[in-house]
Amino acid sequence: MKRDGLKWSKVAPGVIPAWVADMDLPTAPAVVDALKARAEGDLGYPTWLDNHQAGPMSEAFAERMAGKFGWVPDIEHCRTYSDINQALQVFLQVWTRPGDGVALHTPAYHPFLGTLAGMDRPMRPIQLEPDGDSWRFEVPDLRGCRVLLLVNPHNPTGRVFTRAELELLAEHAVRHDLLVISDEIHADLVYAPNRHIPFATILPDRTVTLTSATKAFNLGGIRCSIAHVGAPEVRKALEEQPPFVYGSAHLFGVEATVAAWRHGDTWLAETVALLDRNRHTLAARLPGTVGYRVPEATYLAWLDVGRPGVADVLEREARVLLNDGAAFGPGGDDYVRLNFATTEDTVAQILDRIVPVLA
Amino acid sequence: MKRDGLKWSKVAPGVIPAWVADMDLPTAPAVVDALKARAEGDLGYPTWLDNHQAGPMSEAFAERMAGKFGWVPDIEHCRTYSDINQALQVFLQVWTRPGDGVALHTPAYHPFLGTLAGMDRPMRPIQLEPDGDSWRFEVPDLRGCRVLLLVNPHNPTGRVFTRAELELLAEHAVRHDLLVISDEIHADLVYAPNRHIPFATILPDRTVTLTSATKAFNLGGIRCSIAHVGAPEVRKALEEQPPFVYGSAHLFGVEATVAAWRHGDTWLAETVALLDRNRHTLAARLPGTVGYRVPEATYLAWLDVGRPGVADVLEREARVLLNDGAAFGPGGDDYVRLNFATTEDTVAQILDRIVPVLA
Repeated sequence: MKRDGLKWSKVAPGVIPAWVADMDLPTAPAVVDALKARAEGDLGYPTWLDNHQAGPMSEAFAERMAGKFGWVPDIEHCRTYSDINQALQVFLQVWTRPGDGVALHTPAYHPFLGTLAGMDRPMRPIQLEPDGDSWRFEVPDLRGCRVLLLVNPHNPTGRVFTRAELELLAEHAVRHDLLVISDEIHADLVYAPNRHIPFATILPDRTVTLTSATKAFNLGGIRCSIAHVGAPEVRKALEEQPPFVYGSAHLFGVEATVAAWRHGDTWLAETVALLDRNRHTLAARLPGTVGYRVPEATYLAWLDVGRPGVADVLEREARVLLNDGAAFGPGGDDYVRLNFATTEDTVAQILDRIVPVLA
Repeated sequence: MKRDGLKWSKVAPGVIPAWVADMDLPTAPAVVDALKARAEGDLGYPTWLDNHQAGPMSEAFAERMAGKFGWVPDIEHCRTYSDINQALQVFLQVWTRPGDGVALHTPAYHPFLGTLAGMDRPMRPIQLEPDGDSWRFEVPDLRGCRVLLLVNPHNPTGRVFTRAELELLAEHAVRHDLLVISDEIHADLVYAPNRHIPFATILPDRTVTLTSATKAFNLGGIRCSIAHVGAPEVRKALEEQPPFVYGSAHLFGVEATVAAWRHGDTWLAETVALLDRNRHTLAARLPGTVGYRVPEATYLAWLDVGRPGVADVLEREARVLLNDGAAFGPGGDDYVRLNFATTEDTVAQILDRIVPVLA
């Protein structure tokens, strides 16, 4: 990913970084315009200064969920956070105790594994197993768990869980009295005909939904996300905390998010079309020795390269940085994760470099 | 204060708002330029993504403190927060328990009173008493306190505490084993010949210093502040928390802060000169019936109007919004707070409106 000024600069010259989960693409012009206008406007306190819903941000979120996914969130149940991992730590802190189990599909988004280990919330794996062109899972016994941490669309496999799968998970959540924390940050990056179903439409009173415009609109640096707290007891637990102890949203985060959600969809459609071409280019060019199940969402390719340590080999011999699958927990050792949110030319270059090493 | 788009809009037409503690002035051109450049640049993850010091922000902070105040902070002891009130709630949460007393000069910055009441940390007033042209205080018995929450320069009186006063407070802090949380957000708005002395230079191992560029550079909406945690036990208590539970700094906050601190001082000097003229204009034009001690720092005038409820009268009869002193706790009832961070013309208009009512 290209980097300037305050941004990444640790990548050696000549190496293509295809690891960090943001895009090597500019963001939507509507977002840039909104940010520039704000930079030239009033930078003082916003009207929603002491409002946990960050005013226009929650309104834009609610309208988008209703229009795009048929889910009507309650604006009063929204809270803003810097990012999804902060939000996860907040909800685990107010709702669980050390030792409480957290169920999670594995392989898993690695910062979540770090959060669970660091907070001593033992991870109960729901293992995703290769199944033809896709992935399946069976739900293990969830006794001892207090939370289901759902990542849907799933990172790193790119699965979009079906209604049947979500309903199965919901049954387990009810049976074991679990709070469902549902990270839906990739919901805007689903490839047709797959469809994203907000978990809050299935179990509204047990679900905390986490999302952000930063993933689909490539705004990782703005640190601005939203939680919809459908579970009333969790809202109560939050309200018992000091009101600003977890921080508050900022002008630029709200401007960017509102612009993205209200005015970014033309750009998003073009971007998803590019990513769609890229995911199929990988399928066409990766050698048969690499297990690649074309993702149903996300710009992440989860590649079975048959043995551990291949990310190091690819950095050294192909000069491409991928994520080592071992970081993603159970089932990850033989994999690497490749970020294809870049131009078709760069995808071609990445393939030119890695295919000879992998073949 | 003028407002646009997402900003304040609750003020009735024709009313001059001189209450909210940000400026009715643009910010430094260097800040605007940095923010526009960032808006047009890479908005993805910064290099300091998982770094609690927010990289260049802590570096700029340390250089500024050393160059301007002769204090050399340790970059490794810095943490970023959205704002000072968040930081206060964090430090009270990790270091104190309900019932622990917090000593605080009164009258006091009203959101801090709200924080102490909401968190059940009883406030022990250190009452500021009028003393000729200035203010004095005596330190009461601080048994039962665990924290001294110092606001220096002081809001709302504009006092800049002297070395002798700070040393007296330090003696009490040592005697009663207090953590000193020192809000120094107004340090860049001190009028010569007064001089700001960082409390961390007096009691380094007992002090948490809180500051931000948002006050002096009029950036309240960016929600970006810094804490320097000099007290090792407090750092340890913080490290026992989940690492991102309090959120993290964002690109625009860091860009704005770094630009302000490194390239904003010409603008700041001009702004302080304007504020200096304004504070003296108030002295020249306020009627003798109003007690006005010219502030040594800040753009806040703390006016003794001799009876409660005058803010309401001024809103109704003078069409100027001031803060009612009653919100500032003990000693505030007969006062109003006036924000003079505006043009000389607007200050003249405010005076044209309020003087006939106050005289």
